[in-house]
Amino acid sequence: MYRAAVMVAPGRPVEIREYAEPEMEPGAILLRTIYGEVCGTDVHLYHGRLAGVPYPIIPGHVSVGRIVKVTGDVTDVDGNVLREGDVATFLDVHETCGQCWFCLVAKATTRCPSRRVYGITYSAEEGLLGGWSEAIYLKPGVKVIKLPQGVTPERYIAAGCGLPTATHALERAEVQFGDSVVIQGCGPVGLNAAILAQLSGATQIIVVGAPQARLDMARAIGADQTIDIERYGAEERIARVQELTGGRGADVSIEATGNPIAIPEGMRMTRDNGRYVVVGQYTDAGSVEINPHWDINRKHLEIRGCWGSDFSHFYRGIKVLAKHGEKFPYEGFITRIYRLEEMNEALADVERLQVVKAVVQP
Amino acid sequence: MYRAAVMVAPGRPVEIREYAEPEMEPGAILLRTIYGEVCGTDVHLYHGRLAGVPYPIIPGHVSVGRIVKVTGDVTDVDGNVLREGDVATFLDVHETCGQCWFCLVAKATTRCPSRRVYGITYSAEEGLLGGWSEAIYLKPGVKVIKLPQGVTPERYIAAGCGLPTATHALERAEVQFGDSVVIQGCGPVGLNAAILAQLSGATQIIVVGAPQARLDMARAIGADQTIDIERYGAEERIARVQELTGGRGADVSIEATGNPIAIPEGMRMTRDNGRYVVVGQYTDAGSVEINPHWDINRKHLEIRGCWGSDFSHFYRGIKVLAKHGEKFPYEGFITRIYRLEEMNEALADVERLQVVKAVVQP
Amino acid sequence: MYRAAVMVAPGRPVEIREYAEPEMEPGAILLRTIYGEVCGTDVHLYHGRLAGVPYPIIPGHVSVGRIVKVTGDVTDVDGNVLREGDVATFLDVHETCGQCWFCLVAKATTRCPSRRVYGITYSAEEGLLGGWSEAIYLKPGVKVIKLPQGVTPERYIAAGCGLPTATHALERAEVQFGDSVVIQGCGPVGLNAAILAQLSGATQIIVVGAPQARLDMARAIGADQTIDIERYGAEERIARVQELTGGRGADVSIEATGNPIAIPEGMRMTRDNGRYVVVGQYTDAGSVEINPHWDINRKHLEIRGCWGSDFSHFYRGIKVLAKHGEKFPYEGFITRIYRLEEMNEALADVERLQVVKAVVQP
Amino acid sequence: MYRAAVMVAPGRPVEIREYAEPEMEPGAILLRTIYGEVCGTDVHLYHGRLAGVPYPIIPGHVSVGRIVKVTGDVTDVDGNVLREGDVATFLDVHETCGQCWFCLVAKATTRCPSRRVYGITYSAEEGLLGGWSEAIYLKPGVKVIKLPQGVTPERYIAAGCGLPTATHALERAEVQFGDSVVIQGCGPVGLNAAILAQLSGATQIIVVGAPQARLDMARAIGADQTIDIERYGAEERIARVQELTGGRGADVSIEATGNPIAIPEGMRMTRDNGRYVVVGQYTDAGSVEINPHWDINRKHLEIRGCWGSDFSHFYRGIKVLAKHGEKFPYEGFITRIYRLEEMNEALADVERLQVVKAVVQP
Repeated sequence: MYRAAVMVAPGRPVEIREYAEPEMEPGAILLRTIYGEVCGTDVHLYHGRLAGVPYPIIPGHVSVGRIVKVTGDVTDVDGNVLREGDVATFLDVHETCGQCWFCLVAKATTRCPSRRVYGITYSAEEGLLGGWSEAIYLKPGVKVIKLPQGVTPERYIAAGCGLPTATHALERAEVQFGDSVVIQGCGPVGLNAAILAQLSGATQIIVVGAPQARLDMARAIGADQTIDIERYGAEERIARVQELTGGRGADVSIEATGNPIAIPEGMRMTRDNGRYVVVGQYTDAGSVEINPHWDINRKHLEIRGCWGSDFSHFYRGIKVLAKHGEKFPYEGFITRIYRLEEMNEALADVERLQVVKAVVQP
Repeated sequence: MYRAAVMVAPGRPVEIREYAEPEMEPGAILLRTIYGEVCGTDVHLYHGRLAGVPYPIIPGHVSVGRIVKVTGDVTDVDGNVLREGDVATFLDVHETCGQCWFCLVAKATTRCPSRRVYGITYSAEEGLLGGWSEAIYLKPGVKVIKLPQGVTPERYIAAGCGLPTATHALERAEVQFGDSVVIQGCGPVGLNAAILAQLSGATQIIVVGAPQARLDMARAIGADQTIDIERYGAEERIARVQELTGGRGADVSIEATGNPIAIPEGMRMTRDNGRYVVVGQYTDAGSVEINPHWDINRKHLEIRGCWGSDFSHFYRGIKVLAKHGEKFPYEGFITRIYRLEEMNEALADVERLQVVKAVVQP
Repeated sequence: MYRAAVMVAPGRPVEIREYAEPEMEPGAILLRTIYGEVCGTDVHLYHGRLAGVPYPIIPGHVSVGRIVKVTGDVTDVDGNVLREGDVATFLDVHETCGQCWFCLVAKATTRCPSRRVYGITYSAEEGLLGGWSEAIYLKPGVKVIKLPQGVTPERYIAAGCGLPTATHALERAEVQFGDSVVIQGCGPVGLNAAILAQLSGATQIIVVGAPQARLDMARAIGADQTIDIERYGAEERIARVQELTGGRGADVSIEATGNPIAIPEGMRMTRDNGRYVVVGQYTDAGSVEINPHWDINRKHLEIRGCWGSDFSHFYRGIKVLAKHGEKFPYEGFITRIYRLEEMNEALADVERLQVVKAVVQP
Repeated sequence: MYRAAVMVAPGRPVEIREYAEPEMEPGAILLRTIYGEVCGTDVHLYHGRLAGVPYPIIPGHVSVGRIVKVTGDVTDVDGNVLREGDVATFLDVHETCGQCWFCLVAKATTRCPSRRVYGITYSAEEGLLGGWSEAIYLKPGVKVIKLPQGVTPERYIAAGCGLPTATHALERAEVQFGDSVVIQGCGPVGLNAAILAQLSGATQIIVVGAPQARLDMARAIGADQTIDIERYGAEERIARVQELTGGRGADVSIEATGNPIAIPEGMRMTRDNGRYVVVGQYTDAGSVEINPHWDINRKHLEIRGCWGSDFSHFYRGIKVLAKHGEKFPYEGFITRIYRLEEMNEALADVERLQVVKAVVQP
């Protein structure tokens, strides 16, 4: 029997339940969880802000564990055989169909309607399909990657689900050598974005957010300047970005806040003909006013919504972590490690921004 | 002496004034105006909605005329010598400096701060620098193009300033073969965009606008469907686009209305991972509410502001007109030709959308 | 029983064999062939120039037919149900896996190693998996498209396999409004490319090839100029392109010849900083000398190899045919229609370039 | 009087000549040279391999010095005033016209026919227009950049002309996170490219070249693997790259050798659907055989010639140097510093590859 922390319904306390060892289909893998994570999405799930979630669920979409069972020959995308004992992770979003109009014509697989997500779109009744659990059942076809040499489970989970998300966001940002980049938000996505911007040739990183502990972390991972939203109002913040960028605004801005009010502010922080990537608006937190003349047309601005991530972002992000991980104090993102029994506390801490990254060790 | 229609101040009636023949600098050209145009921008100028305009001005930014004087050897960008008697047009926006940060680093010349625009940013006291005049003085360095064979002055002025603007918009739209394209607005920019979308490989053009006469013109130049905004509300219009596009929305939408309310509607008319080009918000007509979760992030939408045009759009637009002009009834855009004495009436007709295209024949 | 023309081994005459009606798997479709085609690839197959072909094979990769059986509910990518009696075609290249490194990371599905191709990589012993047959068995998962209204089987097969190939080539060509485009070769790919270039905003199409009948066809579908390689040597041809393009060379060139010698010539026909798409080198016809200083580096040339096509090209090409097909005399590509018994003759005619397009009517 | 080392004619020994202090035009700057450089281009100049060079010339195209005179108010592109005493550098390539077809329509300013280059296209009789001189006269309009804080003249000249060239090459390479990059050549361009690839998100850098000292430098600046062309033949080198890249070849390859034979080898080292940037073929060193089927078409390869650099590359390169310069031992590129009297020796050392970077201190 494996224990898991289960979100039984929106607003109801998370509780511990026990599940039998799953029957293994051919091509399936069973992972003994080393770490799972608690991210902002889990807070949204707790409040019932996502549509169509089949409660009760086992949350936890990005996780790392040790393979304890493999049925048949399973290889990763590079052809490496996956074996018992390997420390591995997997892409939470799967069942991208490869057959639909979005997959084949638009080539926008993050909008494939067949996608299902570990820790979000599976009911706990369907099995151990989330990371807040002692074991995770990887269905046949789930894309698994062995952690490369030099990437510890701690560093990997510290980067967490913010890594593929930020990899996707930076891909869309198309940073050029010498660019200044504003990052709105200093949660896990914002911090990962601040690191990846530096690895894309940007030479000035300005992180806008709060609280101070997260801004300190932003500095620690290489931000050149930070702007504390608890001390400065929107107009002051915009003026500060202008001042720091020679009066022009940032070449690229990346929104990673989840707050609609960040949108017009981010537009104004970006220079004429710059790019603005909107990655943080994962749930519907309401509407906001923009001025299409000043903020889009006259500014010749390019705004790119960035939804989710696909396997390439997951794969590429891990390669970057393996190569450059040593240079950045990722482990410092982990403010506290929780036991399965402490998940209600973990959710509360994440919601109050008292932690950069909350990790569960089942 | 040359007569010109002069906008003396915002809100004041346009009046006829006379100007002496200009002294010709080396490299300058004097054009005897055949046609000038009255566009939406002129209505904005009349109401004083653009900042920094040095009234009194001679409006008219896109014009065509016959060369009556050339001082020295002047050639076009293809090396052709410009001669007296040639029928020619010119790029209204000039003095793009080629030296500033926007020209050299951002390569965003439409945001070069040195730009000056015939018919908009020159005072009538600086000379015959607008098209509502019997003659136009082309300063040395103004980019002139001889009308190619087969392009009559009528067809050229019918396409008018909407041609380079739409060329730029479609360049940013990156239409692919088989795309469906929604065009919001059926004024000169919208109609030119509807033509150029067809020449970019789109296979379905849906024009959303009013009044009926303009929608009829949209059909005449090849729109597959039109949606009358005077008959259908925003929700109905969005639903109609969904229905016409297999439930997905348009691959590409192009805003050419000038009305902020068109922005959230256009976002919703566009499919997930589609592109939305905002070209019509030329003046500040106020703010509008958008929902960044649904309309940008989850939709994985790409929004591209499109400001003005540069020489390449002007040059390429004329090439397209020369090659494909015969296939589209451009001349039908010209609802009425006005004399210089009738410019107040012309402005009123444009403002009330009683004409598709108002042309002045000085 | 269904009759098929079978290529039993390289160099051996094609012969007629009979096959039993296939057993239908769930999701499979049986097509009564209306038309198949004979293309240059079939000549290569006949001479054994492609590696790994499992002779005996039933050639014919692009075909059109009437659905005579469907097992279960089968829909196309737009969600339309496919029914008996529908006239339909299908993407010959299938089993693109959606799971491998090329599919997921490189997003280069034309290089997916799992791909299999009707008419090329299936043995006749595996079933009716080629178009030179009275019936074609569409395995479950093969992507089928119902011919849209207005696209007759004649027009569709006239466009043939050159349509998706040219759609892919033009996608890579990124033609801009007003571009001049050289097309080397006036076989089915070249002619389709000449049409699609016009639908991409090009304003000058120069077709270089032979024999005269094909060049006449190039003119008929809208080429502005043709250059006969039987009358002019390489230096003369390059000089002619320079002359026709204001001394600069073409903005974009597209190679569709299959002859290595075309490569350095095409590079020299293209302007500095232009684009050169190489789509015709489908088999190994040997090496050729280029000068990397003049032809690549100093020229700041971009050369894009273009291999095969994917579903999006197939889908988009058919949309273009439905919208714009009327404007181009596609049916004229069909020089002769052959019966199954005449396939040896058909191959000989294609090899001697005596036909633009050879079609088989089984 | 200022002393300069003058290349009087191809093949003739460089000699010292004296020149009077130049008369200063308004907007001009006089630089007291701190360092100039000797690069491969200077060896080509010495052998007369470039067309149209107006010997005698003062070579040296990238240099750094201290401003000793400024006539009038001169500012850099960011609006900073340039003052006597400032340590500054300048873009050697200037007089890009901003008016021609290449500047305005193709937007390919490196192919502008008006360009002139310090140290290459100016005769010594026209003035102190090269870096092998005690002073350099910067004509009005030459783009000057003050060395940013933290960039010493030593580090700047160590990066040298390879920095903007490699910045341009990497811009065209469009490296993605996690890419493997092969760099052919370990001279100044290759080494700069190896650094910039790491700052573009690449996670594996393979440098192919010789001699051992340069390969050691490649390792020192972060190359993951090196392949010595003096020890391994072409087939072995290609096999080694395949082995190091999981059997696929590099995602991106960059040619920086100047040797035509590198071209087919580089094509084969690159994976299917990869990108190959050709930047090293600066002079005509002859032709080479390629196989267009295997090396371009079937491989679906993208080959991008990269000629020279423009102001953006120069500007962005310096920003990168200011931000990331500390992390790489640039100064180690400088093998030896020469006096003006030693330039014949310097040329010989560069030609024999006995130095990574030869610097002149006039």
